[in-house]
Amino acid sequence: MIYLDRDAPVSLVEQMVSQMAGLIQNGQLPPGSRLPSIRKLASQAEVSTATVVSAYDRLTARGLIESKAASGYFVSSRRLQEQRPALPIPQRSELDAVWLMQKLLQRHENITAVGSGFMPEHWLEDMLSSRFLAQFARKEKRSYAAPGAAEGYPPLRSQLSLKLGRAGIPAAPEQILLTFGATQALDLISRALLSPGDTVAVEEPAYFGLHAQLRAQGIKLVGVPRLENGPDLKVLEEVCTAWRPRLFFTQTLLHNPTGGSTDAGTAFRLLELARRHNLLIVEDDVFGDLHPSPNPLRLAQADQLERVILVGSFSKVLSPAIRVGFIAAAPELLQLFTEHKILSVLTASELDERLVCDLLSSGHFHKHLERLRARLSHNRAQVVQGLTRAGLDPVQRFNGDLFVWARLPEGIDMRALVEDAQENGFLLTPGDVFFLRHAPEPWLRFNAAAANDGRLFDYLARCLEKLAVNPGISATQPVSRDLA
Amino acid sequence: MIYLDRDAPVSLVEQMVSQMAGLIQNGQLPPGSRLPSIRKLASQAEVSTATVVSAYDRLTARGLIESKAASGYFVSSRRLQEQRPALPIPQRSELDAVWLMQKLLQRHENITAVGSGFMPEHWLEDMLSSRFLAQFARKEKRSYAAPGAAEGYPPLRSQLSLKLGRAGIPAAPEQILLTFGATQALDLISRALLSPGDTVAVEEPAYFGLHAQLRAQGIKLVGVPRLENGPDLKVLEEVCTAWRPRLFFTQTLLHNPTGGSTDAGTAFRLLELARRHNLLIVEDDVFGDLHPSPNPLRLAQADQLERVILVGSFSKVLSPAIRVGFIAAAPELLQLFTEHKILSVLTASELDERLVCDLLSSGHFHKHLERLRARLSHNRAQVVQGLTRAGLDPVQRFNGDLFVWARLPEGIDMRALVEDAQENGFLLTPGDVFFLRHAPEPWLRFNAAAANDGRLFDYLARCLEKLAVNPGISATQPVSRDLA
Repeated sequence: MIYLDRDAPVSLVEQMVSQMAGLIQNGQLPPGSRLPSIRKLASQAEVSTATVVSAYDRLTARGLIESKAASGYFVSSRRLQEQRPALPIPQRSELDAVWLMQKLLQRHENITAVGSGFMPEHWLEDMLSSRFLAQFARKEKRSYAAPGAAEGYPPLRSQLSLKLGRAGIPAAPEQILLTFGATQALDLISRALLSPGDTVAVEEPAYFGLHAQLRAQGIKLVGVPRLENGPDLKVLEEVCTAWRPRLFFTQTLLHNPTGGSTDAGTAFRLLELARRHNLLIVEDDVFGDLHPSPNPLRLAQADQLERVILVGSFSKVLSPAIRVGFIAAAPELLQLFTEHKILSVLTASELDERLVCDLLSSGHFHKHLERLRARLSHNRAQVVQGLTRAGLDPVQRFNGDLFVWARLPEGIDMRALVEDAQENGFLLTPGDVFFLRHAPEPWLRFNAAAANDGRLFDYLARCLEKLAVNPGISATQPVSRDLA
Repeated sequence: MIYLDRDAPVSLVEQMVSQMAGLIQNGQLPPGSRLPSIRKLASQAEVSTATVVSAYDRLTARGLIESKAASGYFVSSRRLQEQRPALPIPQRSELDAVWLMQKLLQRHENITAVGSGFMPEHWLEDMLSSRFLAQFARKEKRSYAAPGAAEGYPPLRSQLSLKLGRAGIPAAPEQILLTFGATQALDLISRALLSPGDTVAVEEPAYFGLHAQLRAQGIKLVGVPRLENGPDLKVLEEVCTAWRPRLFFTQTLLHNPTGGSTDAGTAFRLLELARRHNLLIVEDDVFGDLHPSPNPLRLAQADQLERVILVGSFSKVLSPAIRVGFIAAAPELLQLFTEHKILSVLTASELDERLVCDLLSSGHFHKHLERLRARLSHNRAQVVQGLTRAGLDPVQRFNGDLFVWARLPEGIDMRALVEDAQENGFLLTPGDVFFLRHAPEPWLRFNAAAANDGRLFDYLARCLEKLAVNPGISATQPVSRDLA
């Protein structure tokens, strides 16, 4: 009874919910009818059981169906349905990536997120430990009872100004706004500079959270392929001429998910192109601290913060639970971002910012980064080796990257692989979410710090062999929507 | 040479900047020309010196003018002007309230913000002290290196569920989303439920930050007068019929800025009206913890979280520097808000949430609230008395309120008063910002905890006498835009 359109702009879950709600409301599924079991509906509709679970959860929340312990799901009585008239809630759209992010943030028992975007907890826990917190509390006697400045804790802005200065980026403390992580930084930039219907250029593949964030604001995205040495400038030039985007979002150093950094030649030609088209550039530098060179080139250095807006964060290298990121930009831009920060969160969480400031000024942060880089480089080499042995084709690149971007052999069904891996304790991150059209992609992203596990490589080798012999349905559908 | 339109939708600063930029760019003010001094231009244009300082700062940031130490401001050389071509930055609009908020968050030497929105630091510093932090660190050994759940720290959501349950509000932990303060809670609600061009109803007067936030998203605001017993339902009914607003924002308990709470009769009629018009209600409950009754009625209790979305925060009663607030709502609404939280900040700051959770579960929070209420009630009575003695007319109301809303005697020029007070060490909060049209208003908001100061009352008495005898220019202009 359910017809799913896999090319539709709304998710499979949404389609299932709206069709079943329709059947219930027009009486085709009368009160008290028994619904198919999760497994049965999943198999009929050719979706994962997780999709059906999600759809049933939402129908339950709307009061349309109810579950009876051990006997399954039933259409609610009319009275129960009427107790909850439909509220004026807008339709969800383009939020599959958000759903994946929410999933990745939940703590899983017995499952390893080998494609996670974060460093593993045990790589970071020495820094923001309870011991450090106790030492900090003994040292810093000031209370936390006065509002923090909207721009962020002034001594941390000064520390960041020094740190950026050492990287050749001339940012006065007044040109630095502290944010709740890089995610808020990117959000404030697009809220301050863009209106619904505006067009921006983004790299492809690239971090799916950025794409989802922009789409939720009604921004049109045009993709620019990410090549080995940086964005494809030929395509960017065409995009600028045809679409006049207001911003271009790029990751110069240690690109997520493909790895590698933009080289100097590409960087300077990119800036020249931006000047010609009066394009602002948002440089997402959340991985730059992991770069092994003492002074890697950032666009913000080459441009001196004229039309480049630099975004940084401590979530990757200190802790994802301490939300401290920043924007460095020209003063008139920074004032706009500050105003939008006040509108959206009023002010900063000063305790977190004071902890980060202490780590930076004490030199602990610097030593921590050195250890982190050495450890990452060692692990990454092993992950590249292990995945190759298992039959995947990792893009090698540079060994500072947190991620390994690896291609599956031809003929392997990604959906079957992801579902099988999950049952075996590995949460994979399939590549389709990093592209603007969630078309099937033969790529997986691995986290070099989390995926260095012999059991993973052995499992992948076995599973790829099994799926190559017995390919099942062909790899025609993107899988991230159904990932559970 | 500068013509300012005080009824224009852009601020005086913006008008000054754009006109001067025009004069410079078309050559009427050639490179090297000396500009009038701040004091002189302020007097010519009949604005405060702060307005001119702001305008000159922005022109300096754009490279159009430069200051030379001790000799004043000059139009920059053509070369300097050309080094910074105009970037594609949108015009600011409706951000005067934001500017005021930014100002109120800065730490001032030698000036007391007697209309501040926060509790004074010394009323709160016992709670989130460095001693408490040290104790907490010794007790809680877990690190802060793993990402927090997007929905917020689960044990704090459980604590809040219990706390709301005691207030008669049936919110399961899954119906509670933690946010970076109430400001983010309100922002997520409007981002999830509204689109640019939508209309919402708000109380008037009411918290200016909410009005500014909604306007920045392109939402149309329709005002509903706030009466002594709650919002004016006759007007709200008309507004619903004429404008079909999607949401109504209201503060049931201890209204900011007028004080007082919505009574039970008004609350039930409001919910009935909301049902008839299929209106969702956002109940901003940031002051509810200060209410002296053991169980004051909230809309969320009467409605059982069907169409009421409850917003709470610990910023008022624990610390504005620890950004922990929450939304409690129906499950399908909460899922939408969670998705928008992930899009805008990804996840929570777990340390802050764990600290608040510890205070709640240990019972310290409860005792702190009792002390706070007693102290507030005592201080509020004295502030009401002191302001009355000084010649103002405070709206008395209920003694749980943090704010005292007081009317100036007729014929007093608000602008002259605010500027004079500032020179005497008191930062006042004039009432015009709390209204949708920033027309002149004879009201001031005082913070009952911060304004209990004999010197303030003596000063006000002297100043009102002086201004009554010598009224200067008449009170025809709102002043908040020019407040420095």
